[in-house]
Amino acid sequence: MTRDEAFLQFLLRMGDNTLILGHRVSEWCGHAPVLEEDIALANTALDLIGQTQMWLGLAGEVQGEGKSADDLAFLRDAWDFRNVLLVEVPNGDFGRTLMRQFLFDAWHSIMLGRLMKSSDDRVAAIAEKASKEVAYHLERSSDTVVGLGDGTEESHRRMQEALDYLWPYVGEMFASDEVDAEMAAAGIAPDPAGLREEYDALVRRVLTEATLTIPDSRFAHKGGRDGRMHTEHLGHLLTQMQWLQRAYPGATW
Amino acid sequence: MTRDEAFLQFLLRMGDNTLILGHRVSEWCGHAPVLEEDIALANTALDLIGQTQMWLGLAGEVQGEGKSADDLAFLRDAWDFRNVLLVEVPNGDFGRTLMRQFLFDAWHSIMLGRLMKSSDDRVAAIAEKASKEVAYHLERSSDTVVGLGDGTEESHRRMQEALDYLWPYVGEMFASDEVDAEMAAAGIAPDPAGLREEYDALVRRVLTEATLTIPDSRFAHKGGRDGRMHTEHLGHLLTQMQWLQRAYPGATW
Repeated sequence: MTRDEAFLQFLLRMGDNTLILGHRVSEWCGHAPVLEEDIALANTALDLIGQTQMWLGLAGEVQGEGKSADDLAFLRDAWDFRNVLLVEVPNGDFGRTLMRQFLFDAWHSIMLGRLMKSSDDRVAAIAEKASKEVAYHLERSSDTVVGLGDGTEESHRRMQEALDYLWPYVGEMFASDEVDAEMAAAGIAPDPAGLREEYDALVRRVLTEATLTIPDSRFAHKGGRDGRMHTEHLGHLLTQMQWLQRAYPGATW
Repeated sequence: MTRDEAFLQFLLRMGDNTLILGHRVSEWCGHAPVLEEDIALANTALDLIGQTQMWLGLAGEVQGEGKSADDLAFLRDAWDFRNVLLVEVPNGDFGRTLMRQFLFDAWHSIMLGRLMKSSDDRVAAIAEKASKEVAYHLERSSDTVVGLGDGTEESHRRMQEALDYLWPYVGEMFASDEVDAEMAAAGIAPDPAGLREEYDALVRRVLTEATLTIPDSRFAHKGGRDGRMHTEHLGHLLTQMQWLQRAYPGATW
């Protein structure tokens, strides 16, 4: 694997994470429990899609086949996506959506902090812009997880169920393979495994305040970020997300 | 409107009804409460898709633009579909799915009985083949509606809820417009309004045996069979149903 091949994979992983999570969060538009949350979720989705534009734009540049961020977002099929499984599983209820957001935001903020020091200026610039947005995402999702976890009996139960359901999807964010080794050697991105300790400390602090119990198991569903196997949910998501460009190829505003 | 234009609309209405309901029923594949029902639902879906092949095949022939049944099924957008709204609303639970099936089967069997005497031999031949399958669909859905309606307290409640939800979609099957007038004048198909009395008698007999109460209202949602307005559900259904031909245009086995 050449450095550019690894770089492309890394960029797809970053951009597909924000694209797929952005789409999932956008599914709440018009359906959130209160207007304030509806707007907040839509804004989060927009931030993530905006970051996607940057990551996949750079991916197309590195790939050198003349593909735009739009081409990569709308014209690839499930097996070409490199997002972690965590971001593609269905939203579930509002509590699960925010728990997923928190578990991702925590990883995202730590990763972006490291990427701001990337040896590649373009990566560092994207990370700097994105990290400001993600700091706010994390503040908001942490607060909501604490508020609902340490809330009523029902909200506590639902948040614990959400955590139990999502926890097996956390480990994949810290998996390492040859792409990561190549990126670390080039100083472009950190080895994800090295972020785990900081992540665990952050997540433990918030979940403890939320009176929630972190599952003991370290079992992790994997296969998304290396494209070996996505869940069936990704295909269904893509049929909806890609519908317009598939039905009306080349359509523009 | 010429006779052929009306004939095309009539054929699209027949074929789109069976296509969209066939797709809805196929969504149960692998998810039904017991294996026997899973197979029965899959077989019903296959019958309906098979009938679609005949109706839309003839529609393409009458249209004279070289379009196949596949072209009409997979390459039209929501506003070109002519199915009644009843068949596009989501399945809901098993009880609602079977209640919808019954309400449609009853209309379908009466309509096909009339179409067997169509002045157009091709229509009569399709109706004859389809009516044997539909007689079985109706027997099965009637039995299930009675079994669940006159079953436990919960199954009765769910079936009554299903009937209350679906009843406002029944009326559209008996709406008449200039297409129907043209078809009736040509002896190709009956005026749907003329089927209502027989339908009401059939439906009343089964629903009474099922200990269910037919809602008083005759209010009817409309707009599907004349293509004025479909529910948002049709668009979502099409993104899934048409995905393969949209993503891989011209793909064949």
